[in-house]
Amino acid sequence: MADLMNNDVFLAFSTYATIVVLKMMFMAPLTGYFRITRKAFSNWEDTAIGKKNPEDRKKMLQTNPDVERVRRCHQNDLENIIPFVVIGLLYAFTGPDLSTALLHFRVFVGSRFIHTVSYILALPQPSRGLSWIVGMITTFSMAYRVLTTALLL
Amino acid sequence: MADLMNNDVFLAFSTYATIVVLKMMFMAPLTGYFRITRKAFSNWEDTAIGKKNPEDRKKMLQTNPDVERVRRCHQNDLENIIPFVVIGLLYAFTGPDLSTALLHFRVFVGSRFIHTVSYILALPQPSRGLSWIVGMITTFSMAYRVLTTALLL
Amino acid sequence: MADLMNNDVFLAFSTYATIVVLKMMFMAPLTGYFRITRKAFSNWEDTAIGKKNPEDRKKMLQTNPDVERVRRCHQNDLENIIPFVVIGLLYAFTGPDLSTALLHFRVFVGSRFIHTVSYILALPQPSRGLSWIVGMITTFSMAYRVLTTALLL
Repeated sequence: MADLMNNDVFLAFSTYATIVVLKMMFMAPLTGYFRITRKAFSNWEDTAIGKKNPEDRKKMLQTNPDVERVRRCHQNDLENIIPFVVIGLLYAFTGPDLSTALLHFRVFVGSRFIHTVSYILALPQPSRGLSWIVGMITTFSMAYRVLTTALLL
Repeated sequence: MADLMNNDVFLAFSTYATIVVLKMMFMAPLTGYFRITRKAFSNWEDTAIGKKNPEDRKKMLQTNPDVERVRRCHQNDLENIIPFVVIGLLYAFTGPDLSTALLHFRVFVGSRFIHTVSYILALPQPSRGLSWIVGMITTFSMAYRVLTTALLL
Repeated sequence: MADLMNNDVFLAFSTYATIVVLKMMFMAPLTGYFRITRKAFSNWEDTAIGKKNPEDRKKMLQTNPDVERVRRCHQNDLENIIPFVVIGLLYAFTGPDLSTALLHFRVFVGSRFIHTVSYILALPQPSRGLSWIVGMITTFSMAYRVLTTALLL
């Protein structure tokens, strides 16, 4: 176990994986912020904050474009960051050079921060599309190394 | 490899991660149960159970509040349990005390069981909100240790 | 670290986990393909491709049954493949026979490919249902071994 903590590639993976997972988790409070400021909830029990009038509460059971946008961004994170974490861990075990590994981890994590900003601020395309593709290619590159190094079918 | 299986923190992580992932997987058959009892499906081919009349089948392509509630609970599990598993694994490798690690794992897994019960039974807030926050804080606490122990940017 | 790369069960896990995660990632470009050919987008900024007329762009902010089908398939992958990856990794550390482990990994990955084909082509049930259940049982079987081998509560 101490072995892993002496391995620089594994340390780098731990650092970047934790940062990008924390970024993903941050989407949840951001959703909550938009739900409260836009008064748009999915659950009846959540509408009890402040107002008590049932008529006013019913109106708060609505969808809101800003809330839906954050939720799509969160979903895109799940679809991309989790594959990165899985394949990145296996990649770290294939013993790549530290500099090559750092390049992969930094490009991926950077691309996901740009993706989030592009999505939430609704920046014109292709800002969001490009940042998404860069993240995908980085993960594919690590998957390629895993399959060429560790293939056992 | 045998090393890991002699490490108590890793064994504890394996146990609690497996339990909480099984809990998450249980949401799928629960969704199926509500879909069948509420006759609310998303796919045309799923409406072929029992009734064969196309008119009756069309009516079964509907959304149902109970089904949607279980699906939101399942989604919340994905958004919270997967970050716990990723950060918890890295945390286990930082060599924490067994008692501290067990405290984190038990509080997180307990909070998610309470969250599920609060969500499915639509208990009044803040039961669901509090259980969600406790889980988040537990994961943040482990992430803090990973970043302070293993930081390599 | 080199230890893991000399362990056949871990190599087999790395191979199959990478393949099935790549399959899951493939759902994203497939969604994009259906969004473009069906002209069905969620974000205003995505409708700027080709047509510039605001009226035509507004019409492209719609849901489409084919797009929704691929998205449900993607979501089902997240709900099933991620538990497999987590529990499969812990299972690999319990030191199972290579042949038993390979059986689990092959059945799971095969079941998910059949599931995707059944879902996208809307094949009659129970093709999709059965492939889903086979994958669930495979993951449960690995979870059983993890809990009986590594239990520390």
